[in-house]
Amino acid sequence: MNRPLIIGIMGGGDANENDVQDAYTLGTLIAKQGWVLLNGGRNTGVMAASAKGASDLDGLTIGILPGNTPRHASEHIRIPIVTGIGNARNCINVLSSDVVVACPGGMGTLSEIALALKCRKPVILLNYEKEKRFEPFQQEGLLSYADSPQEAIDGILAFISGKT
Amino acid sequence: MNRPLIIGIMGGGDANENDVQDAYTLGTLIAKQGWVLLNGGRNTGVMAASAKGASDLDGLTIGILPGNTPRHASEHIRIPIVTGIGNARNCINVLSSDVVVACPGGMGTLSEIALALKCRKPVILLNYEKEKRFEPFQQEGLLSYADSPQEAIDGILAFISGKT
Amino acid sequence: MNRPLIIGIMGGGDANENDVQDAYTLGTLIAKQGWVLLNGGRNTGVMAASAKGASDLDGLTIGILPGNTPRHASEHIRIPIVTGIGNARNCINVLSSDVVVACPGGMGTLSEIALALKCRKPVILLNYEKEKRFEPFQQEGLLSYADSPQEAIDGILAFISGKT
Amino acid sequence: MNRPLIIGIMGGGDANENDVQDAYTLGTLIAKQGWVLLNGGRNTGVMAASAKGASDLDGLTIGILPGNTPRHASEHIRIPIVTGIGNARNCINVLSSDVVVACPGGMGTLSEIALALKCRKPVILLNYEKEKRFEPFQQEGLLSYADSPQEAIDGILAFISGKT
Repeated sequence: MNRPLIIGIMGGGDANENDVQDAYTLGTLIAKQGWVLLNGGRNTGVMAASAKGASDLDGLTIGILPGNTPRHASEHIRIPIVTGIGNARNCINVLSSDVVVACPGGMGTLSEIALALKCRKPVILLNYEKEKRFEPFQQEGLLSYADSPQEAIDGILAFISGKT
Repeated sequence: MNRPLIIGIMGGGDANENDVQDAYTLGTLIAKQGWVLLNGGRNTGVMAASAKGASDLDGLTIGILPGNTPRHASEHIRIPIVTGIGNARNCINVLSSDVVVACPGGMGTLSEIALALKCRKPVILLNYEKEKRFEPFQQEGLLSYADSPQEAIDGILAFISGKT
Repeated sequence: MNRPLIIGIMGGGDANENDVQDAYTLGTLIAKQGWVLLNGGRNTGVMAASAKGASDLDGLTIGILPGNTPRHASEHIRIPIVTGIGNARNCINVLSSDVVVACPGGMGTLSEIALALKCRKPVILLNYEKEKRFEPFQQEGLLSYADSPQEAIDGILAFISGKT
Repeated sequence: MNRPLIIGIMGGGDANENDVQDAYTLGTLIAKQGWVLLNGGRNTGVMAASAKGASDLDGLTIGILPGNTPRHASEHIRIPIVTGIGNARNCINVLSSDVVVACPGGMGTLSEIALALKCRKPVILLNYEKEKRFEPFQQEGLLSYADSPQEAIDGILAFISGKT
């Protein structure tokens, strides 16, 4: 079996209108590519919007939930993975993703960016200011910046072709 | 979205021929129902056989892996969830399943049966001798026994209709 | 540094009077030996009683809590480890123990016995009926039975000397 | 029982000489206060140095280990908590600490700072440049900066008295 690429979308549960719109668009573009979308699964912010985007185009959506029940999952998550391990599930989000795209978010999202890089996962920062801290990862080609959902897709494609 | 039912198949990584055959058949029957098969994901025993069964009939298969990479997943697992949390992932196996079917196995499988019952998940024991310890759960309808894969499917259907 | 032995006491949050009394006595005997007592940390049943026993004799007590706060720890737990990972913390209970003593309990305790044996930790079953399922582990010397707290201590001493 | 304060020391496994020296000094100062030192437990960098500092002054040291065995713990860790959950143990590090002090480090340390703030734990950044991202937390008194181990201790004391 050739497995589909799994793209992890991280980002704030509490997101502004622009971030929500970009997350939705990103979800649609991921589905168009035939990739699987994975996120934190909750019914809010970047999680809900990206899942809706992918789901609207019949993409498969996986939600890695922090709690003990699928009840709080977005309705656009087709496969809720119920972890019961709280924020420790952030590690699973990044380990299960082939590429991680971080939309703007708070400390949870920052923890996922950091964990992804620690685990040597490719990371794309969408709508982020460049940061000195991440320069070494950028230089070795593990991290890149994108200013639009389409640029994030281009970044994913660049990572994949770079591995081939 | 109406989510598909997720059936968790637990069972030994080290399984005899009969258990492997039953796990394969169980996987095919789950796929025929349109359900999603979830298991521990590794490429051995009941895990590999049940994933192959479901996959051969184009069922969706999810593997909750203990390690840090999808490399050790069965090739019949379409969506590997890479947890990196070792045996602690057994909790995720049961929490993410709507119904748990336990095939014969060792201490890992026993821990999953116990955790499932603790989390109030319906459990079907396939090819198990009846046990006094589980009687209270049987009496309240949370646990049942099956002597064949088809009986396990019947048990799942009974649990679902009981919830309706 | 020579580390003190860490003895994990598993057992029901909901325990009868005799089990609570034995858990308390077991705690006192562990402290008398200069060992560290580790358990699930909650303020109930075998956990609370064994922590009180050890604490009354100035033994060090560690509680591995399932939730996000130390507030629900027994007051006799000196070091609450706050995991936030729910029942998945059962794995930590057994991995962190040099020897596991299981008092009577429910499915949570059964999961800990199973996980301990899977992780090759010595297990002593206090006030348990002998079980066919555990015979192979008994035969290889990984599991033993005790009918009193003092017998459990003797069992721990036997395991330790066996390793020397 | 009045529990001792638990101070979590985060920081790089790969640390320079100055950071190692400061981590050692910080460990001694924590022990002098009668506090418990908690860290990631491994025998390297800030973890090993801070544990040695506390241990040299007979302070209690707890190590939250990522792997399945206490074998890789620093010898200055008196109580190794063996989690087996890899980087997901970073959440336990911060949840189990009353105050978190971050020494310089890499992505693992950054994930712990982020998780600590997400979990509303007080954080002191030792030898860090001020960062715009953390300003809101600084303004509400949840995060502060220190330029020496003694200043970190002063920061801890300020947090504690602020809670009283």
